[in-house]
Amino acid sequence: MVTEDEAMRRAIALAARGLGTTSPNPVVGCILLDADGEIVGEGFHAYAGGPHAEIVALAQAGQRARGGTAVVTLEPCNHTGRTGPCSQALIGAGVRRVVIAVDDPTPVAAGGAVTLRAAGIHVETGIRRQEASQGNIAWLTAVRRGRPYVTWKFAATLDGRAAAADGTSQWITSQPARTDVHALRATVDAIVAGVGTVIADDPHLTVRDLRDGSLAIKQPLRVVVDSHGRTPENARVNDAAAPTWVVTNQEVGDGPDGRVDLNALLTALHGRGIRSVLLEGGPTLAGAFLAAGLVDQVVGYVAPKLLGAGKTALLDAGVATIGDAIELDLTDIAQIGPDLRFTATLRDKTLEG
Amino acid sequence: MVTEDEAMRRAIALAARGLGTTSPNPVVGCILLDADGEIVGEGFHAYAGGPHAEIVALAQAGQRARGGTAVVTLEPCNHTGRTGPCSQALIGAGVRRVVIAVDDPTPVAAGGAVTLRAAGIHVETGIRRQEASQGNIAWLTAVRRGRPYVTWKFAATLDGRAAAADGTSQWITSQPARTDVHALRATVDAIVAGVGTVIADDPHLTVRDLRDGSLAIKQPLRVVVDSHGRTPENARVNDAAAPTWVVTNQEVGDGPDGRVDLNALLTALHGRGIRSVLLEGGPTLAGAFLAAGLVDQVVGYVAPKLLGAGKTALLDAGVATIGDAIELDLTDIAQIGPDLRFTATLRDKTLEG
Ligand SMILES: NC(=O)c1ccc[n+]([C@@H]2O[C@H](COP(=O)([O-])OP(=O)(O)OC[C@H]3O[C@@H](n4cnc5c(N)ncnc54)[C@H](OP(=O)(O)O)[C@@H]3O)[C@@H](O)[C@H]2O)c1
Ligand SMILES: NC(=O)c1ccc[n+]([C@@H]2O[C@H](COP(=O)([O-])OP(=O)(O)OC[C@H]3O[C@@H](n4cnc5c(N)ncnc54)[C@H](OP(=O)(O)O)[C@@H]3O)[C@@H](O)[C@H]2O)c1
Repeated sequence: MVTEDEAMRRAIALAARGLGTTSPNPVVGCILLDADGEIVGEGFHAYAGGPHAEIVALAQAGQRARGGTAVVTLEPCNHTGRTGPCSQALIGAGVRRVVIAVDDPTPVAAGGAVTLRAAGIHVETGIRRQEASQGNIAWLTAVRRGRPYVTWKFAATLDGRAAAADGTSQWITSQPARTDVHALRATVDAIVAGVGTVIADDPHLTVRDLRDGSLAIKQPLRVVVDSHGRTPENARVNDAAAPTWVVTNQEVGDGPDGRVDLNALLTALHGRGIRSVLLEGGPTLAGAFLAAGLVDQVVGYVAPKLLGAGKTALLDAGVATIGDAIELDLTDIAQIGPDLRFTATLRDKTLEG
Repeated sequence: MVTEDEAMRRAIALAARGLGTTSPNPVVGCILLDADGEIVGEGFHAYAGGPHAEIVALAQAGQRARGGTAVVTLEPCNHTGRTGPCSQALIGAGVRRVVIAVDDPTPVAAGGAVTLRAAGIHVETGIRRQEASQGNIAWLTAVRRGRPYVTWKFAATLDGRAAAADGTSQWITSQPARTDVHALRATVDAIVAGVGTVIADDPHLTVRDLRDGSLAIKQPLRVVVDSHGRTPENARVNDAAAPTWVVTNQEVGDGPDGRVDLNALLTALHGRGIRSVLLEGGPTLAGAFLAAGLVDQVVGYVAPKLLGAGKTALLDAGVATIGDAIELDLTDIAQIGPDLRFTATLRDKTLEG
């Protein structure tokens, strides 16, 4: 027997397995409990176009769903998309009670709770809402802003250097930290880098197993921000390992500084179904994203080393004086091998007083 | 009843109360246990010239010391300095057993254990040696190197900036972090800053209560490293709140770069009885100390903010390529208000393979 709260915790964990493969859909997890509170079905939304979490769980439960409770991280959809509405499937299966963490904020899919209640099902919402929202933060933010959720990742020394004086930067951080970056990449829809980084480092920008170099099955879109198309023909990002988009001014338009218009870029990525972006630098492009207010989260890998010279992790973020510093809220600090990983969100100044 | 191990822990904590006031002496704590293991006396060395820890504890214990055990963080001294030898005092008091954490490494004071044993006292050494050494790290390092233990302290944003583009740096870190710096200052014998910082920020470099500005009774020596005597007459460091030494080339000699010879400076400070130094920057002077291999510990206060421009926390530490980065061992990470405090020691490359 598990409590509904425990079931929701498990549903949130299940949902997270879909990160990186469900866009433009959210991640969703569902647990079905029978009348005695035993788990009789589990499911998560694994990829766009695939069955929704509720459908997977119902299929597993079969008759045992009747009279039971569905515990689901997001309000069941009410519309016929690539699959039929989950609200109808739950009604049809004879579920008596539905427990929801987060309401669906999209006009097209919302209304599931209303439909369920109209069918006489008891619906409760808000259980572990914050935790479930956090698990769906990219998708929820994308709905709200009409652009993908942007995480800026950097690697630096304790004194903020991203490369040494002679330009060498491999490796500032340890193998465990680099492995962690590949795990992070696997959760996003696109990896974005500036042409400066592509020319300087010729990165591959794929999700790989660092032990044997084998590629993950699903690769994020590689995006090179390159105003005038300076990316070399034979750059590694141009290989066949993953799709790549070299974005020029010609394609998305000029920004105020004559370079790629970053707002237009994010809108275009959103139009392609992309809900989460990992911005991997370099310092110039990261500064431009931050100055434009387009970064939602920062993940910094900091090595316990000092350099005292070389490229800094961040350049020109539009801050001139100490009072205007970009303020972060630290949400996590973890030791990754010898290095530290900071996760922080940007304090949304528009929401303050 | 306490065990000898517990008593040693307490002795180490007592010893720490002397930090900042005992130089050129070490910090020492002593607990006296009677034959039943009850604490009958406690003492620590509070200031140079004052009674040693053992003498304070013996005075407190009186007759109850007879037949008991002295638990002491450092080998009792064997010489007559400003006070008589502690070894004789312990013998005179009829102590039967002496438990020591760390042997005295100085030729002049050592020999206490031998004297005690010769008097028939049972002596044990090495109990909580590492912890007690750590508590005396400045003094022990100073004995070994013939120069003070140097802690470089900096404050920076997560991207390694120590000031904004317009030069403003007050305040990068929070009031709790600044209060913590004053506590750190209170543990050292001298605070060192470059003339660049003195001209740019006009810091006071005293130990104060930040709520009301009141000065601590004991102030570290303020040291301004200033090759050609550019420190303004009316700089705050020149006020009467604490002693100040403006060190010029003329006084200690030219370094290889024509500026103040930092090795000579530290030797001179050692000669003045100084065993611990807090190097408070700025970036140029810190880089010179690091390049010369003269930093033992780093304490970094990092604010969860981004600047993207402005002075970096560290300049020119003599590192040209990533393989030569100065490696640190993190010994502590603490949250101080909204900020983080990193404490790290420098990996001693001369000790490695
Ligand atoms: N440690 C780390 O985490 C990390 C990560 C990445 C890179 N790096 C280091 O960073 C260095 C390269 O960085 P970088 O700063 O030179 O290059 P970058 O940030 O990768 O790329 C900057 C370039 O992007 C192009 N761009 C197009 N639109 C832009 C816009 N709206 N705003 C800003 N830039 C735009 C610009 O070139 P055009 O005008 O030609 O388009 C610009 O010069 C390398 O040394 C690399 O090793 C470190
Ligand atoms: N955030 C922080 O933790 C922090 C702390 C301190 C300062 N700061 C910032 O740092 C800035 C000032 O730093 P800075 O780098 O200009 O100055 P600095 O490091 O305080 O002082 C450097 C100066 O010290 C003198 N010096 C004498 N002997 C030296 C030697 N052997 N090696 C190196 N320097 C020697 C040199 O001037 P001469 O040749 O004339 O002697 C040199 O220019 C200010 O903006 C301040 O706000 C920040």
